Amino acid sequence: MKVSIVMGSISDSKIADKATSILESFNIPYELRVISAHRTPDLAAEFAKNAEKEGTEVIIAIAGKAAHLAGVIAGITPLPVIGVPAKSSTLDGLDSLLSVVQMPKGVPVATVAIDGGENAALLAAQILSVKYPEIREKMKEYKEKLKEEVEQMNRELNSK
Amino acid sequence: MKVSIVMGSISDSKIADKATSILESFNIPYELRVISAHRTPDLAAEFAKNAEKEGTEVIIAIAGKAAHLAGVIAGITPLPVIGVPAKSSTLDGLDSLLSVVQMPKGVPVATVAIDGGENAALLAAQILSVKYPEIREKMKEYKEKLKEEVEQMNRELNSK
Amino acid sequence: MKVSIVMGSISDSKIADKATSILESFNIPYELRVISAHRTPDLAAEFAKNAEKEGTEVIIAIAGKAAHLAGVIAGITPLPVIGVPAKSSTLDGLDSLLSVVQMPKGVPVATVAIDGGENAALLAAQILSVKYPEIREKMKEYKEKLKEEVEQMNRELNSK
Amino acid sequence: MKVSIVMGSISDSKIADKATSILESFNIPYELRVISAHRTPDLAAEFAKNAEKEGTEVIIAIAGKAAHLAGVIAGITPLPVIGVPAKSSTLDGLDSLLSVVQMPKGVPVATVAIDGGENAALLAAQILSVKYPEIREKMKEYKEKLKEEVEQMNRELNSK
Amino acid sequence: MKVSIVMGSISDSKIADKATSILESFNIPYELRVISAHRTPDLAAEFAKNAEKEGTEVIIAIAGKAAHLAGVIAGITPLPVIGVPAKSSTLDGLDSLLSVVQMPKGVPVATVAIDGGENAALLAAQILSVKYPEIREKMKEYKEKLKEEVEQMNRELNSK
Amino acid sequence: MKVSIVMGSISDSKIADKATSILESFNIPYELRVISAHRTPDLAAEFAKNAEKEGTEVIIAIAGKAAHLAGVIAGITPLPVIGVPAKSSTLDGLDSLLSVVQMPKGVPVATVAIDGGENAALLAAQILSVKYPEIREKMKEYKEKLKEEVEQMNRELNSK
Amino acid sequence: MKVSIVMGSISDSKIADKATSILESFNIPYELRVISAHRTPDLAAEFAKNAEKEGTEVIIAIAGKAAHLAGVIAGITPLPVIGVPAKSSTLDGLDSLLSVVQMPKGVPVATVAIDGGENAALLAAQILSVKYPEIREKMKEYKEKLKEEVEQMNRELNSK
Amino acid sequence: MKVSIVMGSISDSKIADKATSILESFNIPYELRVISAHRTPDLAAEFAKNAEKEGTEVIIAIAGKAAHLAGVIAGITPLPVIGVPAKSSTLDGLDSLLSVVQMPKGVPVATVAIDGGENAALLAAQILSVKYPEIREKMKEYKEKLKEEVEQMNRELNSK
Repeated sequence: MKVSIVMGSISDSKIADKATSILESFNIPYELRVISAHRTPDLAAEFAKNAEKEGTEVIIAIAGKAAHLAGVIAGITPLPVIGVPAKSSTLDGLDSLLSVVQMPKGVPVATVAIDGGENAALLAAQILSVKYPEIREKMKEYKEKLKEEVEQMNRELNSK
Repeated sequence: MKVSIVMGSISDSKIADKATSILESFNIPYELRVISAHRTPDLAAEFAKNAEKEGTEVIIAIAGKAAHLAGVIAGITPLPVIGVPAKSSTLDGLDSLLSVVQMPKGVPVATVAIDGGENAALLAAQILSVKYPEIREKMKEYKEKLKEEVEQMNRELNSK
Repeated sequence: MKVSIVMGSISDSKIADKATSILESFNIPYELRVISAHRTPDLAAEFAKNAEKEGTEVIIAIAGKAAHLAGVIAGITPLPVIGVPAKSSTLDGLDSLLSVVQMPKGVPVATVAIDGGENAALLAAQILSVKYPEIREKMKEYKEKLKEEVEQMNRELNSK
Repeated sequence: MKVSIVMGSISDSKIADKATSILESFNIPYELRVISAHRTPDLAAEFAKNAEKEGTEVIIAIAGKAAHLAGVIAGITPLPVIGVPAKSSTLDGLDSLLSVVQMPKGVPVATVAIDGGENAALLAAQILSVKYPEIREKMKEYKEKLKEEVEQMNRELNSK
Repeated sequence: MKVSIVMGSISDSKIADKATSILESFNIPYELRVISAHRTPDLAAEFAKNAEKEGTEVIIAIAGKAAHLAGVIAGITPLPVIGVPAKSSTLDGLDSLLSVVQMPKGVPVATVAIDGGENAALLAAQILSVKYPEIREKMKEYKEKLKEEVEQMNRELNSK
Repeated sequence: MKVSIVMGSISDSKIADKATSILESFNIPYELRVISAHRTPDLAAEFAKNAEKEGTEVIIAIAGKAAHLAGVIAGITPLPVIGVPAKSSTLDGLDSLLSVVQMPKGVPVATVAIDGGENAALLAAQILSVKYPEIREKMKEYKEKLKEEVEQMNRELNSK
Repeated sequence: MKVSIVMGSISDSKIADKATSILESFNIPYELRVISAHRTPDLAAEFAKNAEKEGTEVIIAIAGKAAHLAGVIAGITPLPVIGVPAKSSTLDGLDSLLSVVQMPKGVPVATVAIDGGENAALLAAQILSVKYPEIREKMKEYKEKLKEEVEQMNRELNSK
Repeated sequence: MKVSIVMGSISDSKIADKATSILESFNIPYELRVISAHRTPDLAAEFAKNAEKEGTEVIIAIAGKAAHLAGVIAGITPLPVIGVPAKSSTLDGLDSLLSVVQMPKGVPVATVAIDGGENAALLAAQILSVKYPEIREKMKEYKEKLKEEVEQMNRELNSK
């Protein structure tokens, strides 16, 4: 079991860190690399071609602006690819979102919210949970924890 | 193995049909239902609560406008939920897209392109392929077919 | 007479505070809770189902991003539901606005401006004023006060 | 009990008709008039000033483009004002929506979806139901009917 | 000769100041007032009705969000009305721009750029220059000054 | 007295016709020409340089897409320039609107609604009315006619 | 001298035809192929790697939705790459435009207007004209022809 | 060999600096000037008319808001013109982008990303490389350097 996280630039690390911290809490092994669809196209293709045989089961790709990384990888690998649009300095992430989600017929990218590092990792866990029952159990616990957080918020509110 | 496809209204059937025809070509069993997050909230909750134990492994939710169906289901079930934003008569699908993809931290929806019925089904197949090797093989064949379609387009172009 | 204010996260408190301070000035009793459509779906459904019989007459729901809270509650309760789209860190509130206002036929949400906590409370007061004449009177006084504020601005301007 | 529906132009009749047919099914008396904030400003002001004393309890205002009608009326009357943004020939209704919903602090307009004539009327009914228990009952029946419609869609789907 | 500048709130003073400083440099008399279409509708109507006979020849209206001020005044007065959309805390001024510029057939508002206080005043000067030749001359001098500013920028650039 | 109407292409004639028919009803002389900022830059510059001395008092410029015509002319002439953004086959007129209205500091374009041929002519009439009292009178009559149109709509409505 | 035109799908032929007809009028040799960044990633990479040595001097890439074709090719080849965003059935071309133009630092795509097949070919001609003086001459003639078209439009207008 | 960089205002210097630093690393001579399409229209026309004979081979034009500079120059010169939309204080660069890229048929502008000073210079280099083989070689080296940067990022990541 392995999730591969790739990001278009080291400046996307903050988003990747949100993903890795979720994966760690689910005990899901991962690797993390910088791969650019535009600056290292060969590396991107090679990564995508080998991912399956190197044991990767889900790919998370983080990129901004004209964010092609997730789509380029999804064009090559048969694995499920999760795309995280990264907000950049202009257009507030709309360019990234549309570049990731509006994939043409035949090659889907499972897109999460702009800058949604946690949700990308949670989606990866949900996908793996189709195969691994222990992750399904952890996901149920996680959902319980979400509820408790809200209850805690209510306690805070009432104690104000 | 089962994919559950739910749509907010029977008017979304055209998108659902694109999904079911892909699932059929992958020999993936599916069920198809109309469930509205707003008009049948109990049904939506009940569906989401029971989906896992009734054998559903991936859920596809199709809805338009303030499209809450995928998010509402994802809030309840631990299963992976794929959201298809449906274009409606105003705003060209932007409202649906943002309502589906911009899920808050903790509850992801795997969003595909506006009106992307085929891609939702292909993503479901990719997710199932993590567990079922035969679907992985079919996915590889499908990717070959995509290439052949492009080659065929080039032959058409040259014969013009 | 009671207004129930629910917010998707404690981070929406600033908007809620704008609402509660208006309600207090109108002497309208309220309760304030954190309820998440996605993290606490059961709580949301239970709240919506019981609101009427627990004496709530108007509901204000504050949420951001793919903001489903108002819509989910409106799908269950027959009470009027006011939705406040909260601006989040990306897309400047457009995602929240469209997720709240573009409700499908059959289930309206009375939407106010992005981050419009005061206006949500004023709208709640106007709705209650249909039944309670004393609130109608207060609303007229409030409108007078708005005028006086503008007059005061003009005095400031002239004394510059 | 009376709902006043005003529209900026007779070309908005199609939206108004959706509203009146809902109001009729709820047995809610209404009046319907063309009033333009820009072409008949005196009429708009006079209407807004007199609405309360002429027995109107809720106002629905329908207008497109730089849609000021709802806001202008809400600036004058203490009654709750529901705004319906009408889609026009350019910008797909976005201009209308923002002109109606983004009201400044102090003067709310209860905004429904673009072209949302039915939802405006349903919201009017929900507001009136705070005072009139018989409308509350009808609203509950209406919600039941929405559920039945979805059930009927499922029967259709299964019989295909 | 007089230009009347009205703004929806004293918070728009910064934009108004940009306008008044241009008008002063053109020796164009002006008055400056806070008038809100929503909070002081009577004042707005009265202002618009009397503007012509009180000697105003051009009106500049500054407002943000669902910015109805310019349109409301333009509906009443036969004078040319210049609208300045003010950027507010959400949506980056798009709501203001569309609310000002997208006026329906019959009632134009001469719209300038978001936050464009200077350009509103320059447009007022150009309108007055149709009647007052001395302002036409000043406008030509102003255009010369714009050129000189660019030349000065080039000198700065070369001396770096 | 003369209004010069220029349009970027003969395909904008429909918008120009709406303007000329208003000008004719106001007895305002006009000339109508095709001038392209991009295809005939010399012609555009020459037109703008000579407009004042050839008796033009107001210019209306109609163009679509990256609509530079109004801005280019406004950069040269001291006359007031009205810009009409024309909707083209993509982006629903948003590109045209932003290209016309968002003029930088120093060079205003008086922008009207997308495809707003009538309003451009009415604004031209309002500008001329600053100098020509007979046009002011006609403008007042026109505003009366607008009111009557609304009254007529109400009669139609009541006779249904 | 050769321009290579690639399009993501044969459905983009109409845009390609506008490009080839311009290139033919400039006597610029071209090849036209269907290459999909997502369905035929190897073909795209191979094409991009070999383009220079096979004599291509400029590449035109036409694609819609999450349009990655131009960017993917630009990541590999040192040749100038022109991107044409194709309007698809949703979002009016905005997704395509942003996916093509918002390329990250290091890998430019020379983007033209949505559906701008002619302009892509004209830009290719301008790029080639840096090297080939005869194309520069043709470009000057072309610009003369544009002027004549406008003159012809004016004659039509006057003869109406 | 010369690239001419023009910018609408000295406030665009930061973007220009990104371009000049790339051009310097490619040993490409350049000139840098402030030219405003609106404030110095004669200068813009003169520059565009003379650019070719003064040895300029590619033009880069940087401007914001209703950014007409690139289009105006492209209307006059037969040279390739690269447009850089500059983000301004409102609308996050969308106005600039659409004003630059959406050029009408006949007059292309090679548009790069908002604030994309580096990419404009790289595109200029790619265009020149069609004629100058030494720049082609430098471009290949540059692409290698991009790869090495990504490798360096991976080393950083691993050493964390």
